[in-house]
Amino acid sequence: MKKNIEPCYYGDYLALDKILGAQKLQSTKYGEPAHEEMLFIVVHQVYELWFKQLLHELNAVIDTFNQAAVKDQQLTSVVHRLHRVIQIQKLMNDQIGIMETMTPQQFLSFRDYLVPASGFQSIQFKQLEISLGLKREYRIDFDKQSFYNRLSDDDRSLLEALEEKPSLFELVDKWLARMPLLKTEDFHFWDYYRNATDEMLNDDKETIEKNAFLSEVERRQELKDWQSTRENFDGLFNHDTYEALLNQGKFRLSHEALLSALFIKQYSEEPVFNLPFQLITALTEIDEQLTLWRYRHAMMVQRMLGTKIGTGGSSGHHYLKKTTESNRVFLDFFNMATFLLPKSSLPELPESVKRSLGFYLQ
Amino acid sequence: MKKNIEPCYYGDYLALDKILGAQKLQSTKYGEPAHEEMLFIVVHQVYELWFKQLLHELNAVIDTFNQAAVKDQQLTSVVHRLHRVIQIQKLMNDQIGIMETMTPQQFLSFRDYLVPASGFQSIQFKQLEISLGLKREYRIDFDKQSFYNRLSDDDRSLLEALEEKPSLFELVDKWLARMPLLKTEDFHFWDYYRNATDEMLNDDKETIEKNAFLSEVERRQELKDWQSTRENFDGLFNHDTYEALLNQGKFRLSHEALLSALFIKQYSEEPVFNLPFQLITALTEIDEQLTLWRYRHAMMVQRMLGTKIGTGGSSGHHYLKKTTESNRVFLDFFNMATFLLPKSSLPELPESVKRSLGFYLQ
Amino acid sequence: MKKNIEPCYYGDYLALDKILGAQKLQSTKYGEPAHEEMLFIVVHQVYELWFKQLLHELNAVIDTFNQAAVKDQQLTSVVHRLHRVIQIQKLMNDQIGIMETMTPQQFLSFRDYLVPASGFQSIQFKQLEISLGLKREYRIDFDKQSFYNRLSDDDRSLLEALEEKPSLFELVDKWLARMPLLKTEDFHFWDYYRNATDEMLNDDKETIEKNAFLSEVERRQELKDWQSTRENFDGLFNHDTYEALLNQGKFRLSHEALLSALFIKQYSEEPVFNLPFQLITALTEIDEQLTLWRYRHAMMVQRMLGTKIGTGGSSGHHYLKKTTESNRVFLDFFNMATFLLPKSSLPELPESVKRSLGFYLQ
Amino acid sequence: MKKNIEPCYYGDYLALDKILGAQKLQSTKYGEPAHEEMLFIVVHQVYELWFKQLLHELNAVIDTFNQAAVKDQQLTSVVHRLHRVIQIQKLMNDQIGIMETMTPQQFLSFRDYLVPASGFQSIQFKQLEISLGLKREYRIDFDKQSFYNRLSDDDRSLLEALEEKPSLFELVDKWLARMPLLKTEDFHFWDYYRNATDEMLNDDKETIEKNAFLSEVERRQELKDWQSTRENFDGLFNHDTYEALLNQGKFRLSHEALLSALFIKQYSEEPVFNLPFQLITALTEIDEQLTLWRYRHAMMVQRMLGTKIGTGGSSGHHYLKKTTESNRVFLDFFNMATFLLPKSSLPELPESVKRSLGFYLQ
Repeated sequence: MKKNIEPCYYGDYLALDKILGAQKLQSTKYGEPAHEEMLFIVVHQVYELWFKQLLHELNAVIDTFNQAAVKDQQLTSVVHRLHRVIQIQKLMNDQIGIMETMTPQQFLSFRDYLVPASGFQSIQFKQLEISLGLKREYRIDFDKQSFYNRLSDDDRSLLEALEEKPSLFELVDKWLARMPLLKTEDFHFWDYYRNATDEMLNDDKETIEKNAFLSEVERRQELKDWQSTRENFDGLFNHDTYEALLNQGKFRLSHEALLSALFIKQYSEEPVFNLPFQLITALTEIDEQLTLWRYRHAMMVQRMLGTKIGTGGSSGHHYLKKTTESNRVFLDFFNMATFLLPKSSLPELPESVKRSLGFYLQ
Repeated sequence: MKKNIEPCYYGDYLALDKILGAQKLQSTKYGEPAHEEMLFIVVHQVYELWFKQLLHELNAVIDTFNQAAVKDQQLTSVVHRLHRVIQIQKLMNDQIGIMETMTPQQFLSFRDYLVPASGFQSIQFKQLEISLGLKREYRIDFDKQSFYNRLSDDDRSLLEALEEKPSLFELVDKWLARMPLLKTEDFHFWDYYRNATDEMLNDDKETIEKNAFLSEVERRQELKDWQSTRENFDGLFNHDTYEALLNQGKFRLSHEALLSALFIKQYSEEPVFNLPFQLITALTEIDEQLTLWRYRHAMMVQRMLGTKIGTGGSSGHHYLKKTTESNRVFLDFFNMATFLLPKSSLPELPESVKRSLGFYLQ
Repeated sequence: MKKNIEPCYYGDYLALDKILGAQKLQSTKYGEPAHEEMLFIVVHQVYELWFKQLLHELNAVIDTFNQAAVKDQQLTSVVHRLHRVIQIQKLMNDQIGIMETMTPQQFLSFRDYLVPASGFQSIQFKQLEISLGLKREYRIDFDKQSFYNRLSDDDRSLLEALEEKPSLFELVDKWLARMPLLKTEDFHFWDYYRNATDEMLNDDKETIEKNAFLSEVERRQELKDWQSTRENFDGLFNHDTYEALLNQGKFRLSHEALLSALFIKQYSEEPVFNLPFQLITALTEIDEQLTLWRYRHAMMVQRMLGTKIGTGGSSGHHYLKKTTESNRVFLDFFNMATFLLPKSSLPELPESVKRSLGFYLQ
Repeated sequence: MKKNIEPCYYGDYLALDKILGAQKLQSTKYGEPAHEEMLFIVVHQVYELWFKQLLHELNAVIDTFNQAAVKDQQLTSVVHRLHRVIQIQKLMNDQIGIMETMTPQQFLSFRDYLVPASGFQSIQFKQLEISLGLKREYRIDFDKQSFYNRLSDDDRSLLEALEEKPSLFELVDKWLARMPLLKTEDFHFWDYYRNATDEMLNDDKETIEKNAFLSEVERRQELKDWQSTRENFDGLFNHDTYEALLNQGKFRLSHEALLSALFIKQYSEEPVFNLPFQLITALTEIDEQLTLWRYRHAMMVQRMLGTKIGTGGSSGHHYLKKTTESNRVFLDFFNMATFLLPKSSLPELPESVKRSLGFYLQ
C-alpha cells in the first residue's frame, strides 16, 4: 500500500519557507527596526492560522447539517469538532496575554507605519461570524455600513455570497425544529410543564415580595423583571405571543426549535439526548468563549492605545466593547436556564417513550 | 536552635478536621441530597480561601505604603506580592470553568434551600474592594444603599471602619505625588513633551480627516472623541483644567501622581524606574483581572439562572454586568497609553539626571 | 413547597468561621512570623478541598459501577462527573504555579517549624490513589513499606479497608469484560483485524529497515522494539500469551476488557459506543493529568529544596520523580494506540449489528 | 513625519496569501482526504511561528550579553524579553491539549503519507536548544550521532556554525563570573556563610537520624544523600573540589558564576540585585517550562502511537522521555535551593556595601 508514497520532509510538508519567510517588518523597511513588531506580526499570523482551523471545523459541521437528514454517527463527529473549536478558542483567549507583554510604548514605536491596517480587515474573522450566524441584519450600525466599505471587491463578493448561505445557527434551528420528539409523546409533557412553571414563578414572586433587604425602588424593579420573565414563559405556550417576542428581539430561535432544545435540556441524562445535549452545550460555550475573546480584546486595545485612535482611523475599544454583547448568536441557549425546571418537578419519561428513543448497552 | 520545636503533623497543621468537616449540604438536611451541592460549597470555600490570601498580601502592601518613606528593599517585596496576587487572580478566573461543569438543572435541585444566601454577603470580597480603593462614593447606587442593609451589625462596623482607612489607591497616589522626580529635573521635560504631543495629536486628526472609509456620521464622532482626548491632554499641563476633569470623573489620580506615573512609564527602561514601573503595571493587571472576573462571573450567573431571580432575591447578572466596568479602580493607569509618546519622540535623560537616579552594576 | 425552609446565610452556609479560622502559622507561634507561611497553608488547604471534591465524584462513579448492571442514564452522569474531575485536575496543575511564587529562601524562613509534617501524610490523596486502582501491590517499595508506618492507627485502618474494596480500575475492567459485543457479532471481526494488523506490522518493519538515517546500533534497537510490539499483538489473539504478558506487567487490564476497549475505540463514532468511548478517554485523561501533577510537583519540590531533605525527613523529589511513571493506573488505555487500525482498514459494521446496537434520532 | 509612509493593509502586511496558502494536505494529494490532517499541519505551523518568535527574543538577549559590558537599561529589556519567552512557552505547553483533540485513529488515517517526516527535523527547535546552551557535548548519544545525519547539508552547516558561537548559558556564566561583588566586600561573607551552613547541615543530619519513620535501609540511603550534599557544599569553598565536581557533571556553571548567583539569591530583595535576580529566576523558569514541554510532548506521542514507530522511523516517546531530564541547561539555578540559607542566618549587608551597590528613590 505504501509503495507509491513519495518521501515527505518536515520543512517541505509544513511549507516553512513560506511560513517563516512571511514576517516583513514595516519598521525595518523604514529604517527604524522596532523589536516588538515581530511579536505583533507573529501573534496576528497565529490568530489567522487558528481562524483557518476554526473555519475548517465549522464548515465541516455546516455541511453535515446541510443535508436532509443527519445520521447518528455524524452527530458524534459534529460534537467532537465543536469541542475542538472550544479548546482552540480557549487558547486564543489566553494568547491575548502574549500580546499584552508588548507595552503601549513599544507599540508606539511602529504604530505609525501600519496605517490604515486594522483587525477589522480580517476576512476570516468575518467568515467565522457569518458562518456562525452573525449576518448583516444582526450587526450594529457601524458594522453594517462601514465594514463592507473597507473591503476589496473580491472580499466583499466572497462575504456577500456567504451571507446568502445558511449559517450554523439557521441549520441547527431547522434541525431542532423538525425533531419528532414533540409530536410523538404519548404523555402530555407541556401541560405538566406549564403547571410546574406556574408554581415556580409564584414562589419566585413571593421571594421578591418577602425580601426584607430590598428598598421599594429595587422591589419594583425586581417585580418588573419578574413580569417580563413571566411573559417570556407565556411565549412558550402560545405561538403568536412567541412570534411577537421574536420580532422584539427577545428570542432568535424559532418556536419549535426552542421547545425541542428545552425538552432536550430537561431530559439530558437520557442517552438518546446525550449527543443533542452536548451539541447545544458546545454551541453555548462557543458563544461564551467568543464573547470573552471580544471582551478581552477590547480591554487589550484600550490598554495599548488608551483613547488614541487606532491605525484603522477609528477608536477601536469603544466599538469593540459595544459588540461584545450585541454580537452573540446562541444567546437563547445561554438564557435557557430561565425555563428549566428542577428534575424533581419533572414527570419521568414513560417507559414506552424511553424505549422508543433509547438503546440498551446491557 | 531546633531543640524546642514541637513535632508538627500534616493534618493538624492544616486543621483538616475543620476544613474537611465544613461541607454541610442543605439538600441533605432536607432529605433530598443533591450531588452537585458539594461542588457548589467547595468552589465557594476555595474562593474564600483565596480571598483570605489576597487580603494577606494586600494588607502587607498597604502597611508598607502607609509609612513616611518606602525603602527600596520594601518595593522589591511589594512588587513580588502583587505579582502573586495576579497569579492567584488568574487561577480564580479559570476556576469559574469548574463551576460551569454544574448544569443549570443540577443547580435547580438545591437552589431553593439557599434563600436568601448570596455572594453579595461575602465580607472578604468587600474588604478586597474597599482595600483596593472601591470606597462607597465610587459604588453604583444598588451597592451604595442596599449592600450595607444586608450586613450584620458586626460586619457593617468592620467595613465601615475599613472605609475610614487609606486604601491602596490613595496610598499609591500619595507616594507617586511626592516623588521628587518632577521637581529636580534640570531639563525641561514637560515643555518638550508638550510640543511632541501637539505633533502627535495633529497627525491623528489628519488620519481621521483623510480616512476614506468613514461615513460623515462616523467622522464627526471620531473628531468629537479626538477633541475630548485633546482636552485631557490640556489637563496634563494645567492644574485647574485637571481639577475640573477630575471632578467630572475623567480622572481619579491626583494631578501630581498622574504626571509621575506618566514620567515613569515614559522612561521605564531606566533601572531606577524598574520597580515603580513594575508596581504600576501590576496594579493595572490586578484591575484587569478583577474586571475579567466580574465579567466571567456575570456570564456564569446568567448561564446558570437565565433571567430567574437569584437566591438573594434579586436578578444577579444585570447588576453584575453593570459593575464590571464601573468598579474599576486603577483605570487611569489602564488608560495611560493615551498620553504616551514613542521613545523616538522623547528626549534622552541627560547623563546628570541619570546619574542622580541610577546605579551601575558594572 | 418552600414553606418549611429556614433562611440560609452565606457565611453560615459555607462555615466561614471554620474555613477562615483554620490558618495557624507555626512561625507566628514561635515568635518569628513568616509572611509566606500563610500562602503555604492556604495552598495546601485548597488542595485538600479539591481532593474532597474529587473523592466525592469518584465515589459516586464507583458506586455506579458497583452494581449488577449500569443503566444508560447512569453512564451519562458517570462521564459528566469524570469530565469534572479532569477540569479540577487541570486547575490543580496550574495551582503549582501559585506555590512557585514562594522563593526557596522564603520557604526556609519557616521550614524548620514543620518537621516532621509531609505531604505524604495526606490521607485523602492516598484514598484517591487507592480508589483509582493504585493498590499496595502496584506501589514502589518506598511506598509499600514506609508509607503505612507513618500513619496513625485510625488512618491505617481506613486505608486498609479501602484496599479491600473494588477500585475504579477493577470495576471498569469487569464492566468492559462482560460487554456482550464480542460474542454476538455475526461477522468475524477479529479474523479481519488480525490480517490487517499483519499488514501494518510488516509495513512498519520495512520502514525501519529502509530508514537510511539509522545507524546499525539504532536499527537493531528499533527492530527489537518492533519485535516486542509484535508479541503484544500476539497476546491479543491468544489468551495464554496474554496471561503471560499480564504476569510480566506488560498489561494490567484483563484480556476480555482489553478487547472490548479496543473494539469500542475502533468504532467510537457509532452512537452506541459514544458514552463508553468518552468513559475510556476520560480515564486516560485523568491518568495523564495525575501524571503531570506528579511531575510538576516533583519539579516544584526540587526547586524549593534542591537536594536538601524535606520536612518529613527524606529527600522528596527523587521519590516523587520515581512515582511519576510507575503510579499510572490506566496505562493500557493510554497505550492502546499501539493496536489501533486506521478506519480504512476496518470492515464496516454490518447493518444488522449496527441496528442491534444503535438508535436512530430521525 | 508620516508623509512618506505608504498605506499598509492587513492582509498584505501579514502576508496572508503565504500563511493561509501553506496547508497542503498529503491525504488530499493521495485522494483520501483526512479531516484531521489540517489540524496536524496548523498546529505544527503555529509551533514554528512561536519558535521564530522565541529565537527573535533569545537572539536579542544573546546579543546584549555578547558585549564587553551590559548596561543597566539593557538588563531591564533582557528581563522583559525573557518574561515574554516564558509566557509563550506556557501557551505552547497548553497547545499540546489541542493536538490531543485528534484521536489516535484519526492520526492513523494520514500517518502513512508522512514518512519519513519527523519533528526531529525542526531546525528552529535545534537552534533554540543550541542557543540556550544544549550543545553537542551535552546531548545523549542518539542526539549526538543520529540527529546530524538527518539534516540537509545547508541545515547541518547552519547548526554547526551555531555550535561555535557562545550560547546564552556561556554568556550568562561569564557575566556572573566577572561581577565585582565577591571581591569588593569589606565584610567576610563566605566565612559567615560557611559557619551557618555547617549548622544547617548538622541539623539536617540529626533530623534524618531521629526520623522514626525510616527503615534502616532508607536511613542509610538518606545519610548517603546527605553526604553527597555535604560534598557539594565543600565544593563551594574549595576551587579544586569544585572543578572535580564540575568534571563529574555535578555542576555546569563555573565556580565564580555559581558563587555570584548564590550571593544574588541570598540578597535578592536588595534593589541593586533585583534585575539580576529576575534574570536568574527567568532562566530557571524557561528551563522548567521547556522540561515540561518535553514531558507533555512525550506523553502525547505515546498516546497517539502507543509503541508503534513514528513516521521518522523510530519509536519517539522513549527517546523523548529520556531527553526530558537530560537536556536541562540551567539546572544549577534550579538546584540552587540546596545552598540557600534562611534570611535569619544571614548577616545584614553593611551600610557601606549597600551604599556602594544601591540607589535611593527617596
